[in-house]
Amino acid sequence: MDAYDRIVNILREKTRFIIVSHISPDGDAIGSTLALGEALTKLGKKVTLYNRDGVPSTLGFLSGSEKVVADIPPENFDCAVLVDCATPDRAGQAFERAAIAGPKVAIDHHRIDSASVDVACIDDTAASTGDVVLRILKRMGTAISRDIAMCIYCTLAVDTGFFRYSNTTEAVLKTASELVGLGADPWTVAKNLEESYPAERFHLLARSLATLTLAYGGKYAFMDVTQRMTAETGASIELSDEFAGIPRSIGSVVISALFREMQTGKIKVSLRSKEDIDVAAIAKKFGGGGHSHAAGCSINGTLAEAKEKIEAAVAGIIR
Amino acid sequence: MDAYDRIVNILREKTRFIIVSHISPDGDAIGSTLALGEALTKLGKKVTLYNRDGVPSTLGFLSGSEKVVADIPPENFDCAVLVDCATPDRAGQAFERAAIAGPKVAIDHHRIDSASVDVACIDDTAASTGDVVLRILKRMGTAISRDIAMCIYCTLAVDTGFFRYSNTTEAVLKTASELVGLGADPWTVAKNLEESYPAERFHLLARSLATLTLAYGGKYAFMDVTQRMTAETGASIELSDEFAGIPRSIGSVVISALFREMQTGKIKVSLRSKEDIDVAAIAKKFGGGGHSHAAGCSINGTLAEAKEKIEAAVAGIIR
Repeated sequence: MDAYDRIVNILREKTRFIIVSHISPDGDAIGSTLALGEALTKLGKKVTLYNRDGVPSTLGFLSGSEKVVADIPPENFDCAVLVDCATPDRAGQAFERAAIAGPKVAIDHHRIDSASVDVACIDDTAASTGDVVLRILKRMGTAISRDIAMCIYCTLAVDTGFFRYSNTTEAVLKTASELVGLGADPWTVAKNLEESYPAERFHLLARSLATLTLAYGGKYAFMDVTQRMTAETGASIELSDEFAGIPRSIGSVVISALFREMQTGKIKVSLRSKEDIDVAAIAKKFGGGGHSHAAGCSINGTLAEAKEKIEAAVAGIIR
Repeated sequence: MDAYDRIVNILREKTRFIIVSHISPDGDAIGSTLALGEALTKLGKKVTLYNRDGVPSTLGFLSGSEKVVADIPPENFDCAVLVDCATPDRAGQAFERAAIAGPKVAIDHHRIDSASVDVACIDDTAASTGDVVLRILKRMGTAISRDIAMCIYCTLAVDTGFFRYSNTTEAVLKTASELVGLGADPWTVAKNLEESYPAERFHLLARSLATLTLAYGGKYAFMDVTQRMTAETGASIELSDEFAGIPRSIGSVVISALFREMQTGKIKVSLRSKEDIDVAAIAKKFGGGGHSHAAGCSINGTLAEAKEKIEAAVAGIIR
């Protein structure tokens, strides 16, 4: 019996589920939550969908998103399913107080050291957690509805950078094709994720791009978002969440960084890289983490101090 | 005998080809040229690849791109194949003087009023001209090499906006999957097209975004690129070719425009739209053209005059 079978057995057996994903959820976290939620509901299960931070407005177009609660109801669950999140602490403190009289299971595609749950289905051959959910639903013989197809298509689009990154395999594109055949609509996903920005995002981008700086012969590029920029443009800091990728898209650049002054007084650093350069190693030095090509950390101090620290770490790699 | 059969017969029969695409070529024009060129060369044909403007540097990664000439050699051809271009005048004046003792054939996926060639294979069910070329090669029984797969994958990525636009169908994703199976590499395509910009592009973008203006309750957004901006940032005007899509990505916007001061003294206007709004109709009023959601024209006069003219046309549609 493999991990898929173990998960399938639990999903079939249990009846009162809470499905939870990581804080600051992205399209893979929410899409996976909603797809699994709909499938279990159709099987007659009682299902609570929970995320500490709720659903980002860009993902509100996904069917069922209105059912995701940001407070755990005072109910008893006989199973918790963590999606795109292999350890309960990534789901936020409140989740650790939920009344769960049964197994905690995790569904994920990120390779991790250890999952602190009872049963884990971690498949790093999948491009997204939604892709793992799809494989589970197929194993269960669940019909893939149009809404489920849309949610899972969204997880693939988000985690492959709209079919750009190196995890865009023959199998991923075949799955995407099948999902479109089942009713997923690529333009609806793209329009909501990438064509529905508030204008303030671009006012903020103009200000941030004005700080774009290249170093080490153009191999390292970085830019800032300051509290003053967000105040003067009226943009929320979250609107700069994708800016870190912008300096990386310069041909000469192999490492890029975005430095953001947070209201907490800390500097949030988002690192991106190309080729074989591992920025997770840099982020770990400062208590952060992430993937090889996308990682982050928080640094106490001023913007100048954070830049100095990161630059010292970057210098060790690209010099 | 359908249009595909007619083209296949000509490709089999003739021996000295010139393959040509439209001026200011994009990834579909060049990818189609190279894919067809390699296939015919392998069949033992003599093939000249021609584009008046050569290959843009971003497409230099495609195998065979170095074979594309910007001057027509003084040879005799027994067939001209126009790709992504159904009328010879779109290929530039020099092409009209080429020595072609045989049929002019066109391969395209844009619906057009009339193709002024001898045989046309126009298939608007295809997402890109490269997709039409692939269908022709399959009809001919040609083996799809890794290089051909890469070129055709590139045409699909470009013409579907990396699998975002509404032409991203089940069939397109299935074809993309097959091409990756044959050796096309999505990240190589993405990296070269979207992660290899010169830094000056972003300095120019910062300046251009500073002019971003919304009107008509946020439904219309526009921005400028002036001669002063390009001079001060050292960026070539071509680096702003994709800026027109940026204001459209604001949620409230249904029409966006980019106004660029050209060295010719004219104002180049690039229009983009969402939903059922047809900007080609606006562009045609000023002697331009394009698709329903992406069109353009040139206007004599100052930046302010061009804006006034376009805004009057926009007002008629969205008010």
